[in-house]
Amino acid sequence: MNTDNIRIVLVNTSHPGNIGGVARAMKNMGLTRLYLVAPRDYPNEQAEWRAVSAKDILDAAIVVPTLEDAIADCQFVVGTSARERRIPWPLLDARQCAERMAQASSQEQVAVLFGREDRGLTNEELRVCNLHLNIPTSGAYSSLNLAMAVQIVAYELHMLRSSAELPVNELEQWDSPFASQGNMEHFYQHLEETLIDVEFLDPTAPRQLMSRLRRLYTRVRLDEMELNILRGVLSETQKWVKRARSGS
Amino acid sequence: MNTDNIRIVLVNTSHPGNIGGVARAMKNMGLTRLYLVAPRDYPNEQAEWRAVSAKDILDAAIVVPTLEDAIADCQFVVGTSARERRIPWPLLDARQCAERMAQASSQEQVAVLFGREDRGLTNEELRVCNLHLNIPTSGAYSSLNLAMAVQIVAYELHMLRSSAELPVNELEQWDSPFASQGNMEHFYQHLEETLIDVEFLDPTAPRQLMSRLRRLYTRVRLDEMELNILRGVLSETQKWVKRARSGS
Repeated sequence: MNTDNIRIVLVNTSHPGNIGGVARAMKNMGLTRLYLVAPRDYPNEQAEWRAVSAKDILDAAIVVPTLEDAIADCQFVVGTSARERRIPWPLLDARQCAERMAQASSQEQVAVLFGREDRGLTNEELRVCNLHLNIPTSGAYSSLNLAMAVQIVAYELHMLRSSAELPVNELEQWDSPFASQGNMEHFYQHLEETLIDVEFLDPTAPRQLMSRLRRLYTRVRLDEMELNILRGVLSETQKWVKRARSGS
Repeated sequence: MNTDNIRIVLVNTSHPGNIGGVARAMKNMGLTRLYLVAPRDYPNEQAEWRAVSAKDILDAAIVVPTLEDAIADCQFVVGTSARERRIPWPLLDARQCAERMAQASSQEQVAVLFGREDRGLTNEELRVCNLHLNIPTSGAYSSLNLAMAVQIVAYELHMLRSSAELPVNELEQWDSPFASQGNMEHFYQHLEETLIDVEFLDPTAPRQLMSRLRRLYTRVRLDEMELNILRGVLSETQKWVKRARSGS
């Protein structure tokens, strides 16, 4: 993917605050190229306010009078769209569409078009697109805020780049190695002894106690530091029991 | 997944507009339960204005004085977090985390915590969480707007529910069946005849013309209606050539 070849094109945006929100959403996800087709009220300080630290994206934004001006040099044009159209068009959801855009961007100029806040892109504008993109929403309220829609598309593009860097499971980046099975067995023996010492466990009627404790510590996967802490507690406990018994 | 068991918890939100943006983002993605822990300025008309048609979510939001009040009955608590913490915690990205939440929600109460606009959740708040959730962002500007962060998490949850309904490829929902290979061959023969008739194709020196046209129509996959249109054009063209020849 070459994000330098991907542009976000906002068509006839009404609210300047949304333009600022789009700029921030883009920068958060590593996109930089913003085109504004005949925005209703821009430049405007509300746009700057909502952009926060993405003012550089706004400053570099290219304002053009027509959609044609924004996409004339593009080989791959995607239009965001609600799902039902009279004539079906090649349609993908944001995730699948991001993959196509990423592939195309390595060699081509890619544009993603976002329409007006109140009624999206016109049929005529959608007809210039190679592909339509739909963001799945709830039937109860399907109208996404413009900046939110850009955020989701930019997020899907970013996920394609960042997924290789992410942990594949929630304990991947840990600060201590996990305990070996052998050390876990020593721990369970130590735990059982101690529970007998403190008379919490009756060895003649053990019931399910050790099974339940084993299940607990298996599920959590102890790291070595945690194991040492727990064994330290057990050793101290045993000393106190011994001291109490020899004093009695 | 049972979305009735998933709540969004906003902790000490400063800007009421963000609360409204969160309500809209939730409703767009089919979530309904919003908890507000000690919001700085709420209720406020800016919240209603940003919520647009999600005012019902705001009206049903539960305002509580402490985080404990918001999550006391929850079995699974997720905290949104930037990645680096002094003590690593089980950490997943938004996509993986959404799967865990969806699973848990079928039997448990699930809470997702979002912190303050300027500094997120405190270490103490993060310590009550079973899992930390990170939304991957660009290193250039990693601070997401609060409502945007909720939007992405809600979107990932919604994708898990809606992916079964979505087209698996961009031409799945088409209004005409695609042409069979046999009909495509008849079309190519008809096309070739016609190109010879109009003397665009020299049968003694055909070069790569038919190969290129075959590649074009293979790539696009014609539907039957399109095929009939093209064959109609070819037939008409041939009639005009015949008429011109017989008149000469």
